[in-house]
Amino acid sequence: MNTTVIDSVAVGAQADLVLELGRRARAASRLLMKAPDSAKSAALRFMAQELEQSKEALQAENAKDLEAARRNNLEPSLVDRLTLSDKALATMATGLRQIADMPDPVGSQSSSIVRPNGMRVGQMRVPLGVIGIIYESRPNVTIDAAALCLKSGNATILRGGSEAFHSNQALGRIIRAGLQAANLPQDAVQVVSTTDRAVVGHLVTLTDYIDVIIPRGGKGLIQRLAAEAKVPLLKHLDGNCHVYIDSSANLDKAHDITLNAKTYRYGICGTMETLLVHADVAPTILPRLAASFDARGVELRGCERTCALLPQARRATDEDWATEYLGPVLAVRIVDDIEQAMDHIARWSSGHTESIITESLEAATRFQREVDSSSVYVNLPTCFADGFEYGLGAEIGISTNRLHARGPVGLEGLTTYKWVLTGDGQLRG
Amino acid sequence: MNTTVIDSVAVGAQADLVLELGRRARAASRLLMKAPDSAKSAALRFMAQELEQSKEALQAENAKDLEAARRNNLEPSLVDRLTLSDKALATMATGLRQIADMPDPVGSQSSSIVRPNGMRVGQMRVPLGVIGIIYESRPNVTIDAAALCLKSGNATILRGGSEAFHSNQALGRIIRAGLQAANLPQDAVQVVSTTDRAVVGHLVTLTDYIDVIIPRGGKGLIQRLAAEAKVPLLKHLDGNCHVYIDSSANLDKAHDITLNAKTYRYGICGTMETLLVHADVAPTILPRLAASFDARGVELRGCERTCALLPQARRATDEDWATEYLGPVLAVRIVDDIEQAMDHIARWSSGHTESIITESLEAATRFQREVDSSSVYVNLPTCFADGFEYGLGAEIGISTNRLHARGPVGLEGLTTYKWVLTGDGQLRG
Repeated sequence: MNTTVIDSVAVGAQADLVLELGRRARAASRLLMKAPDSAKSAALRFMAQELEQSKEALQAENAKDLEAARRNNLEPSLVDRLTLSDKALATMATGLRQIADMPDPVGSQSSSIVRPNGMRVGQMRVPLGVIGIIYESRPNVTIDAAALCLKSGNATILRGGSEAFHSNQALGRIIRAGLQAANLPQDAVQVVSTTDRAVVGHLVTLTDYIDVIIPRGGKGLIQRLAAEAKVPLLKHLDGNCHVYIDSSANLDKAHDITLNAKTYRYGICGTMETLLVHADVAPTILPRLAASFDARGVELRGCERTCALLPQARRATDEDWATEYLGPVLAVRIVDDIEQAMDHIARWSSGHTESIITESLEAATRFQREVDSSSVYVNLPTCFADGFEYGLGAEIGISTNRLHARGPVGLEGLTTYKWVLTGDGQLRG
Repeated sequence: MNTTVIDSVAVGAQADLVLELGRRARAASRLLMKAPDSAKSAALRFMAQELEQSKEALQAENAKDLEAARRNNLEPSLVDRLTLSDKALATMATGLRQIADMPDPVGSQSSSIVRPNGMRVGQMRVPLGVIGIIYESRPNVTIDAAALCLKSGNATILRGGSEAFHSNQALGRIIRAGLQAANLPQDAVQVVSTTDRAVVGHLVTLTDYIDVIIPRGGKGLIQRLAAEAKVPLLKHLDGNCHVYIDSSANLDKAHDITLNAKTYRYGICGTMETLLVHADVAPTILPRLAASFDARGVELRGCERTCALLPQARRATDEDWATEYLGPVLAVRIVDDIEQAMDHIARWSSGHTESIITESLEAATRFQREVDSSSVYVNLPTCFADGFEYGLGAEIGISTNRLHARGPVGLEGLTTYKWVLTGDGQLRG
């Protein structure tokens, strides 16, 4: 047998495995769609309890992944994310109970209308069906994503990173135990039991059995998946977010909001990456802000006018306007008016989150109406971009798609609707 | 120069053409997003007037397509659809004025909430952006689709069938005149000016410039596009629709609804293709229905039990359960209970529209809750599946997707939302 034949056998085996995962998920999905909330919530509470009671066993499996990580010289930040510490497990258990307590989105109906012929037309929330989750090394995603999908009545296929293989398999056993305890189909959540990368390619093309795939990870992974995918992706690309300080801004608020927008956390997608400042207030606010940023070690890169005001700033290039630094660097540009600020945003923003600092109703209204990003704020730091902060109760991620769900996605974003019409023998024609 | 080189030059030229269409559409979209409803509606009313005033010129262009159609022996039904008769033009003008009169979906805000920190969180409807429409020979789609997309603030690229080339170009000139009269960007609606098929392949992969593509046409066209597309498709595949007559049905209603569901029009996607009948009422209702169907020339194909009751019925095969006849043929199956009816639907339905005929609240509730189709009715014929009937005022099509818009899609389905948050200096952390 030559190499080519061996390869095709291997590929065929993975394709069959994924097809079987898909078939099982679809069958489970049909049952899960009609499952009452009491069963779904009981399963989640059972999993929370199991997480606490099986702590040692989980950590023993996790230790295998940690050992391999150290052997492979994984970055300390990745090892940190991989670790199922007591605190990480407690957070996961709390999350499960919070999701269990949330109202079930499935079956809820919008306000309905009655048509002239007397038939009633409404919409009912229903699960999306089967959701695939493809993610990198964080094992907590296994629990969080499974819980959100289960609560919203979706069957899930979870494909985590190979670095977390043993941890994910152990968490998968806890999830299955919870499903079983609540008499829900075992295949409602399937954790893929191989680290073969061919699996991912099959998952993203299994259109008959998977309704949507949610990739979690870096932009590189997501772009790669998008290039291959036939199944729709609910995806997050990047967050090149802007704050614009208008001429009418209250400068104390502007200072605090801007500082918070950059320094709350450097690595999250809602962090401000470019600051736009109206020319009228730049001479007052920029030196004050620069001092605060200097004190926190944030490097400034500015347009020509900014550099004239701030000797410490390096000249920004087009690449700076385009960059999501995810670190202690900030691009700064002085603009002549709100129009120029919005033009800059239209040109360079990734469409994630932008904010205007202003006391002018006209400027606030115009900015919120005309800026075409998934979140547009007035007098708030962009780092609020988060499902919990928006009151969604939980978040599967932040979508940079335009279709279906946009911005932070909670339980409702994991559902779709069907039209429900009720009549009494009305006929058409 | 050999053939290969000529081909690659041609392909390159079409790719450049489509890229330029995309760039212009994106630029127009940015302006159209902020256009007031008064301008969009004025453009539509101007187009309606122009359709009426340029009737002769339009019909002269249409005559060229009709002549070619006759030369190419196009089917009479297709020639009929292609014809811009006085009546067809009047219907298009009326449609334009109706869309102009509808409320603008853009800028409307949902109910908002106030978070514990005092910031207000809401959602605002915004256009999808740039919409591509790929359709077959009907020139009225050029006007209808352009009008719906314009009203909802989207830029459009229209690629109609080559059979309607001259008609579509003439309609495109009327659309541009309307845009110009209302001071809207000329590129807000672009009618592709070539019939080269390579254009379609480029359109469905132009992800940077086109946000969604709505294909209108037969299942074959749409499956072909779906296989190639990287841009999301808002698509309609097929309508294999079911009516289930429950044991508790009022049999007079059941007779009339079932007859209407099949015979209102054979060729529309909401037409019933399979009738499911509870065994308790089958001996009463089926012979009565069969007489009515016979009188209308509808051929029946039944399960074994159906054939025992109805000697005129031919035996149905699995292919019958799977088929959207779009003609005077009906598959009939007797079932033992609602469970078996729903199992049949889960197995064979295309997920379009299903209806239960029942006087039982329990059966009605269960059917509407558990049947996973985009429209689920009680005591109504499936042929009501239509945006106008649902009160949407207009319809761009019926979606068989699960994501974004499902079932009949009106203006709201052509929009998405953005989160709008308003605060007063709240900080995170």
